[in-house]
Formats: sequence, structure tokens, C-alpha cells
Amino acid sequence: MAEHQETGTTEGKAGNDLYPRKILEYMEGFLISKTVFTSCELGVFDVLEAAERPLTAEEVSRAVGASVDGAERLMAACSGLQLVNTHQEHGQVCYSNTQQASAFLTRSSPTSLYQAVQFSSGTNYLCWHYLTDAVREGRNQYEKAFGITSEDFFQALYRSDEEMGKFMQLMNAIWNICGKDVITAFDLSPFKNICDLGGCSGALAKQCTSSYPECNVIIFDLSKVVQMSRKHFVTEADQRISFQEGDFFKDSLPEADLYILSRILHDWTDQRCIELLRRIHKACRSGGAVLVVEALLNQDGSGPLTAQLYSLNMLVQTEGRERTDAQYAALLAAAGFSSIQHRRTGKIYDAVLGYKQE
Amino acid sequence: MAEHQETGTTEGKAGNDLYPRKILEYMEGFLISKTVFTSCELGVFDVLEAAERPLTAEEVSRAVGASVDGAERLMAACSGLQLVNTHQEHGQVCYSNTQQASAFLTRSSPTSLYQAVQFSSGTNYLCWHYLTDAVREGRNQYEKAFGITSEDFFQALYRSDEEMGKFMQLMNAIWNICGKDVITAFDLSPFKNICDLGGCSGALAKQCTSSYPECNVIIFDLSKVVQMSRKHFVTEADQRISFQEGDFFKDSLPEADLYILSRILHDWTDQRCIELLRRIHKACRSGGAVLVVEALLNQDGSGPLTAQLYSLNMLVQTEGRERTDAQYAALLAAAGFSSIQHRRTGKIYDAVLGYKQE
Repeated sequence: MAEHQETGTTEGKAGNDLYPRKILEYMEGFLISKTVFTSCELGVFDVLEAAERPLTAEEVSRAVGASVDGAERLMAACSGLQLVNTHQEHGQVCYSNTQQASAFLTRSSPTSLYQAVQFSSGTNYLCWHYLTDAVREGRNQYEKAFGITSEDFFQALYRSDEEMGKFMQLMNAIWNICGKDVITAFDLSPFKNICDLGGCSGALAKQCTSSYPECNVIIFDLSKVVQMSRKHFVTEADQRISFQEGDFFKDSLPEADLYILSRILHDWTDQRCIELLRRIHKACRSGGAVLVVEALLNQDGSGPLTAQLYSLNMLVQTEGRERTDAQYAALLAAAGFSSIQHRRTGKIYDAVLGYKQE
Repeated sequence: MAEHQETGTTEGKAGNDLYPRKILEYMEGFLISKTVFTSCELGVFDVLEAAERPLTAEEVSRAVGASVDGAERLMAACSGLQLVNTHQEHGQVCYSNTQQASAFLTRSSPTSLYQAVQFSSGTNYLCWHYLTDAVREGRNQYEKAFGITSEDFFQALYRSDEEMGKFMQLMNAIWNICGKDVITAFDLSPFKNICDLGGCSGALAKQCTSSYPECNVIIFDLSKVVQMSRKHFVTEADQRISFQEGDFFKDSLPEADLYILSRILHDWTDQRCIELLRRIHKACRSGGAVLVVEALLNQDGSGPLTAQLYSLNMLVQTEGRERTDAQYAALLAAAGFSSIQHRRTGKIYDAVLGYKQE
């Protein structure tokens, strides 16, 4: 990940010795994460986007309200990370956004990761400080990180409208980027009535209605989530999207042809997953199906690294885990689903589909 | 850095769209750092090293006192990071150390990074949580991170014997890996009497005496550092290494042919650096020199990324910064040194040499 010095006026022996280049890169991973997080949080990329020409670090510092010295170092690191382009003008270094920064790190971009960055920086980063305890104890560290007992993860996560809003923005950002791939991994056009369980901000529901012109989607989620989603995320113009308030572990589920469980099962134990899937199987029309969207682990334990890291993240924050396609298939089969298939998308999230027999 | 899914049974379009692969990797940098830190801290690599055969995650969990579930996920991530090899035995996955893990992540290895990992995980990681404030304010965040006012960085850093010991171990680990390259970047054989200012644990002094059989080295450092170094790091057998206690900003410096300032100047402002270099110039024998060991920034701001990140680290923790070779040359020239040259080693740390005219 890190760029390392090419040979210059070197007399060094970097190539010859056993040198822990990879381990040193791993060790500076958090420096890189926080450099991106801080640049985003200060609005560096927004300022560069709004400017009519490349800006010096001093101009950036004034615009975002930071020290000149701090902004100089931050911009230099952003340049090293190839998030900004550099231009030499009148003997000064000026910066502009790369295409990637413009598309994903500015607040106003439709594919902005800004909210995901905020959540990673504020919540995940602190939780991960207690990874050692999480591995030792085999349970989440929400209490240590935030002073909140987390018998129910979502009670902790949704402890205030502000925190809930942040989480919903995070989900929205992820599905803006990965949503289309998971929704089109299988041909879902036969399913006209879709229910997105824990559908949150509706980003995936919107991907459904745009990818499949004949479908309608009910977003089923907790009452306060539905209210927030109606207010801030789903407009009246989305006529094919409707809402139903409820707790999918307790309340009766709407009848549908297809149920979507996107990043839901990874929050829960096998037992709770089967319990939920059985409720879905019961509500589902004959010949209907359930679509599980998750980051799939490889069968042989070889990766993908992202899913392996996310499984540790689930340990640190929830009672769940990431799973292999075979593990998801076993859960679906235990709840009565059959003809189970999976598709990998090549991005973070993959799809598993299982049918209720006609 | 992250391993991403190759196309499998994919129908995805990952190659075609604008997808923030690099940014997502940056965002998971801290997950990778903490996975390495926790594995080290729990002693996973020590247990694998001591075992006579590859171990299952369950065996690792018992040996390090961790939950089976937590150890399973941790070992999977270590495998994804290529820090451990996997073996299939009787249908079970077993793990063994890679050469890199064995050499750098076990406690007992002479090139162990264990102490550097501990310092990064415990101190740097928390300080970096306040990077945004550091950039805004243009000053270090020791107070916010640790409740310690840091008018003098080293008063804060050496606030207890335990903390001081950790820092000394960190320096020791780094010079075990990078020391030989910086000490042999220039031919230092003409210098018989060397003084290592802020020489700490003596790791670099040892590299000097082993690389240059005719030299003697005085380690000059604060009284409590010298005591710790004598007690734990430098044995009586190192007959060519001696100590002098003092504060290099206040007390008189020993006369020598060569002064080493290794990772000293990056802790201080330009003004303080020149002040220190002038004191050295005064004490130095005619024809003698000063060797500055630091991570050099490229002149054009293009990198190296590691030095750019370290400069932010200096902002977060000290009053100093990383500099270009020209900036170090300017500091040395301002203090009276001439014939200034630099050498890059291809590893993290480089060398700058300046002479006092005869």
C-alpha cells in the first residue's frame, strides 16, 4: 500500500536483506486511514472541487479553517496517496482532486463515501482499539468503546437520532457504490413484489426499482428507521417504494415474492439467522425466494481479505460474523429454502439466492 | 493492500465502473494495522514458533488464552495478510509462521518488531484519533490523547520508567532493522571518536562499533535514559561504547570527530534544530562532521508516502516535522557545517552528512 523510495543516490541494500516491507506497510495502515478520514472531515476535497483552479496548501488551510503547517503536511500525504494531483505554479505546489477523490470523497457527489468515512473514523476506529479484548473474550466491545451495554446491537447503534442517521447514511453510501451489482447478480425480474427486510435508507430498494421496472418494494424496518427514511431518504416520487414498520424478529412480515436480507444475517448468530429465515419462509409466496447480500468468505479460508477483516469487525461490534457461501446455504436450507445458488460480484458484497418450493 | 476477489462465478461489472477500490483499501488500513497489533500482542506468532507442527485456530486460542471464535477469525485474517501459512490436515486448517512473521513478529527474534508494534498500537493509534484537531490547530495532541500537557515532548514521553522503556524498545527495534544501512550509507571509518546524541538504547552505537572496528562511541542522553540503557541494553562486553549523561540543549557536549543525530532533529522546530547544531559545531573537532539520520522527503513533494505520513505523526505527537534533504542542508549550513551530502538507503531512514571545516 505504501509507496517506497526508489533507488536514488542510494548505497543501501534494501533489495538484499530480509526486510519487513509488507509488515511495515501493515503497521502504517492506520496512518493512511486517518489521513483520508481527516481530509474528508475537514472538507479538503470539497474545497478543491469548488475552486476554479488548483489551490495551494495555504489556500486550502484558510478555506477549511486549519493551520497552514497542518494543511501542508496533510496535502503532501494526500498527494502521496494519489488522492490529489499536484501542479507547479509560480514556484508553488498547487493541488486539485483526482477523479477518485472527486467522485467518492466530496460530500455532494452522488457516490460520496463521506458518511462511510465519518462512521469508520468515529465509531469503527475506536471500537477496533479493543480488538485484543474482543478476540480474548469472543464478544463485542461496544461497552468499552462507548460506555453502552449492547445486549441488542441495534439498541446501541440507534441510541440517538443522530447516531441512527449516521448509520443510515453509511448504508446509503455503500449501496450507492455496490448496490447495482448485488441487485443484478441474479435476474430478479420474475419477482414483482419485493420486501427489503431492514431496508434502512432505501438505497437498495431504489436499485431494485431502477433495475427491474415492473417491481414494487416494501421497506420493512423499525418504526424510527422508517420515519427517518421517509423524512430524509425516500421521496414521494419513488411511487413504487412503500414502507412497513416492525421488528422482523417479532412482528408479522408482509407477503412477498422476494425477500431481501442485505447485511442483516452477518449481524446475528446462526440460531437467530435460522429463526429469521424461518419467519421469512413462512411469509413467502410459493415459488418465491430470499436474496441474501453479504461479503462472502472463500470456502478454503484464503480470503478475500476484506471479508476476513469484516468478520473481525462483526466480532468487535455485533454478535454476528461473515460466512462462506456454504454456511449461508446451510442456514437457508435449515429454514426450508432450496435450489440455493450464489454469485460473486468482484466488489465487496456478493449475493446468495434460495427458493421456497412451489 | 487488500486482496480483492478475482472473478469466480461472477456476473459483476467491477472492472467497468468507476469503483473506489483504492479508497476502500485506505479505509480498511486501520483494520489491517490492528489485526497485526492484536496478533502480536496475544503472542500468536510466538505460539506458532514454539510449536513443533502447524496448529489449528483452536490450539492457538488455548495457548494464548483467547476465545476459539475470536482466534479463528484472527487467524483467517492473518492468512489473508500472508503472515501465516495454511495447511490442510485431517480436514482441519492449521497455521504456521511465514518467514516474515517468524523474523519480525515473534518476541524472541533479534529483529523483532514486537515493541514497535506495541508502541504503535498503544500510543500512536490513540494519538492519531485526534489527527483532525492536530491539523486544525497545528500542534500535537498528547494532552487530548493521554491527559498530559506536552510543553516538552520528552517529559511527556518519559513520564514513567515503563513508558520510557517502551520508547527505548521501539528505537531498538527500528535500528535492528534499519541501523546498518544508515550507518554504512557513508564511509564513516575516518571518524574514530563518535558521539551519538540522544543515543537512547545504543542500538545505533552497536551498529557503529560492528561496522567500523576502530571507532569508539559515547552515548549522550538524559540521565534516566542512560541508567535504563546501562541496565537493560548495553552490556559490559560492549567495551567500545561508553555513556555521558546530560541534556544536549543545556549541558556541555563531549568533544568528538563525528556526532550522530538519529531521529532527533525531526522532533524539533527549525530554530531549536539550529540551536542544537550550533552547539555541536562548537564542540566538534576541526575536520569532524555531523551525521543526521532521518526519513527524507522528496524535494518535489512526491513522496515517499512513509515520510509524508511520519511528518503528520510528528505533528500529532511532537513540535517537529520530517524534512527534505535541502531543508536539512539549510539547517546544517545555518549552524556552520559545509560539504553537505545526503544518501538514500531505500528503507525508511536516510542519512545526511555535513563537515566542520579544518
